[in-house]
Amino acid sequence: MNGVTNGSAVEHNAQLNVPLTPLDSSKLRITLANTLKALPPPEDQVIGKNYTDHMLVVTFDPAKGWSDPEIKPYGPLSIDPACSVLQYGTSCFEGMKAYLGPDGKARLFRPEQNMARLKRSADRLALPSFNELEVLKLLKRLVAIERHWIPALPGHSLYIRPTIIGTRPSIGVSASDHTILYIIMSPTGPYFRTGDEGISLLALGDPARSWPGGIGGHKVGPNYSPGFKSLEQARELGYQQVLWLIGEKISEAGIMNIFAVVKRDDGEYDVITPPLDGTILPGITRQSAIELVSAHPVRTILPGLDDSIRLHLHEQDITMTQLKAWFTEGRLTEIFVTGTAALVGHIGRIGFKGEDIMLTRHEGGGGPVARALYESITAIQEGREVWEDWSVLCE
Amino acid sequence: MNGVTNGSAVEHNAQLNVPLTPLDSSKLRITLANTLKALPPPEDQVIGKNYTDHMLVVTFDPAKGWSDPEIKPYGPLSIDPACSVLQYGTSCFEGMKAYLGPDGKARLFRPEQNMARLKRSADRLALPSFNELEVLKLLKRLVAIERHWIPALPGHSLYIRPTIIGTRPSIGVSASDHTILYIIMSPTGPYFRTGDEGISLLALGDPARSWPGGIGGHKVGPNYSPGFKSLEQARELGYQQVLWLIGEKISEAGIMNIFAVVKRDDGEYDVITPPLDGTILPGITRQSAIELVSAHPVRTILPGLDDSIRLHLHEQDITMTQLKAWFTEGRLTEIFVTGTAALVGHIGRIGFKGEDIMLTRHEGGGGPVARALYESITAIQEGREVWEDWSVLCE
Repeated sequence: MNGVTNGSAVEHNAQLNVPLTPLDSSKLRITLANTLKALPPPEDQVIGKNYTDHMLVVTFDPAKGWSDPEIKPYGPLSIDPACSVLQYGTSCFEGMKAYLGPDGKARLFRPEQNMARLKRSADRLALPSFNELEVLKLLKRLVAIERHWIPALPGHSLYIRPTIIGTRPSIGVSASDHTILYIIMSPTGPYFRTGDEGISLLALGDPARSWPGGIGGHKVGPNYSPGFKSLEQARELGYQQVLWLIGEKISEAGIMNIFAVVKRDDGEYDVITPPLDGTILPGITRQSAIELVSAHPVRTILPGLDDSIRLHLHEQDITMTQLKAWFTEGRLTEIFVTGTAALVGHIGRIGFKGEDIMLTRHEGGGGPVARALYESITAIQEGREVWEDWSVLCE
Repeated sequence: MNGVTNGSAVEHNAQLNVPLTPLDSSKLRITLANTLKALPPPEDQVIGKNYTDHMLVVTFDPAKGWSDPEIKPYGPLSIDPACSVLQYGTSCFEGMKAYLGPDGKARLFRPEQNMARLKRSADRLALPSFNELEVLKLLKRLVAIERHWIPALPGHSLYIRPTIIGTRPSIGVSASDHTILYIIMSPTGPYFRTGDEGISLLALGDPARSWPGGIGGHKVGPNYSPGFKSLEQARELGYQQVLWLIGEKISEAGIMNIFAVVKRDDGEYDVITPPLDGTILPGITRQSAIELVSAHPVRTILPGLDDSIRLHLHEQDITMTQLKAWFTEGRLTEIFVTGTAALVGHIGRIGFKGEDIMLTRHEGGGGPVARALYESITAIQEGREVWEDWSVLCE
């Protein structure tokens, strides 16, 4: 039997011919924790070290559709040992942050972009679909309830982890028609506490993180655990993260997008980042950096730069050979990485085939472009400046 | 602080400098279910539809090491929402089967191969290590307890799913130093109930299942969910499984290894399967098929073949162009697939770029080589024939 659409958008259960309940934020049920945890001190505000008092949970069952969403005390999930996520890596997630503005109000940064990406990730893994704007409404509600968990310190925020797992309780190898969608949150300070010297990367092409036709362009669980061993290898050799190569081409740095700043013969600067060819995560901080660099100096002047500094943004492949050539010629002024967790981080050193590329050291941390982007994006995230509709209030 | 090895094999907790408890089957604790489930009828003996009464569970904690193993009633696992397996696809597993012999005793097929592969898979995902022979002892004990769940019908068996999941309760992106190792079991009959016409495959190169430097050579969760969408696409187009290509090269069929039988000018046969270059799962049925084909006719005569039929085994790349050429020349006598679930299945049809390759139809099902291997391996698995040390009693 086929599904019945009745010309409407209501999904139906194909076997039972009954309409499936859509994900509906208005049906939210809230159960608050009896006792609340103490907020961790700033030094313990590290992603994943502490979680807030509550989480959001909503489930999909193919016979009924989406359950009533629930905000309830943070706690373990009960999962059948045969479930798809435990067997076949059926999971996808988002990384987001909530920030406190000078008005004391909680803000999200371009959250509709995360919701759209989460929906694409779920589709890539053949997981049930949902109205992503309903999830955003629920997320805002959760942030409002946990608002006191957002640290008020500069560079601190409340990291948010929306997750979808496939919970079909069968080891038969096919798509999961059951899911749990949940959101957990963890207060966090700066991701890398590296100081002036910057982040160190070990460039590796084998093992590979991603490949054409693979899943590297989606934020899905299976992109991550296969990289753990390489990360351990990098750390043993004294590097903090892996610079993933595909053949000669630079792909991602750890779990971040990467940019190179190259001085041209005419004294202006190329800002280059690998293109979204399906092997690279379409980072929202990456996209924001691209848009801000492209806006300078006509639509905005980036902090610390002046309008005499011209930046030319290129989404194009970067090979290690090219990078080394720029370095040798003294034209490689900065390499920086972007991501929700790290925001903008500057690279100090790249190990490749037994040699190190030692990047120019800038006083006080990153180079001018990385610093400008860090300052600019932080100001927008924290509501100190307004740029388009990037900052969204949670009320 | 570094880990302390004391010149012995005992692992130590690096921070606390205390020895970690090794995985020890002698510490097994057994809690039997109060009521036992009814055995499903043969038509419900499908992998993943029903699970036996008990499961084996043992956990690793980095502060203590391995817990006492437990056999206990089958039931859900309690998993923190931040756990590695739910976020980062940190899981690996094995597929095995238990068979009833004519003597009524339970048997496993080359189980030490599965245990060695499970250990390699865990290492590939940077999960804690273990003594795989201890796991095998525990598995045998579980099979012995669930012996009445092994169907006595021909072609039926008890499918066994050892699984390891990373349970580090943190969304920080690094290796999981907590795990749960568990084993669940499901009674099963023939995997494909396709009859004479054989299995249909849709050849796809994009999306890709695996790639050099990837994880295709390991039995890890992240290899599977990224293929669900392609499987749905194949089914919508009327095919049962995906034939995964890497560029032009044939890789795997669904979740099985693939073999082509090609008649040569001299009247003898080449039996060709893609090599283990890291992109293909090193199947234990694949290896067994290779060894049996290579043994014919000197060390054994395969069932239904006679010693005048000469088979030449090659592990070499097969391109779609080559396959189509053999087909057009009338030399492609069989294509078959191997795997623990399906054992040996014959391919009837391969769709590629809008055309179908319709394989020769053999009366009663597979071609002579596929049938010979099916008969031979089944006889060994069920203890009706002895071949080397492939069949192992569970007592």
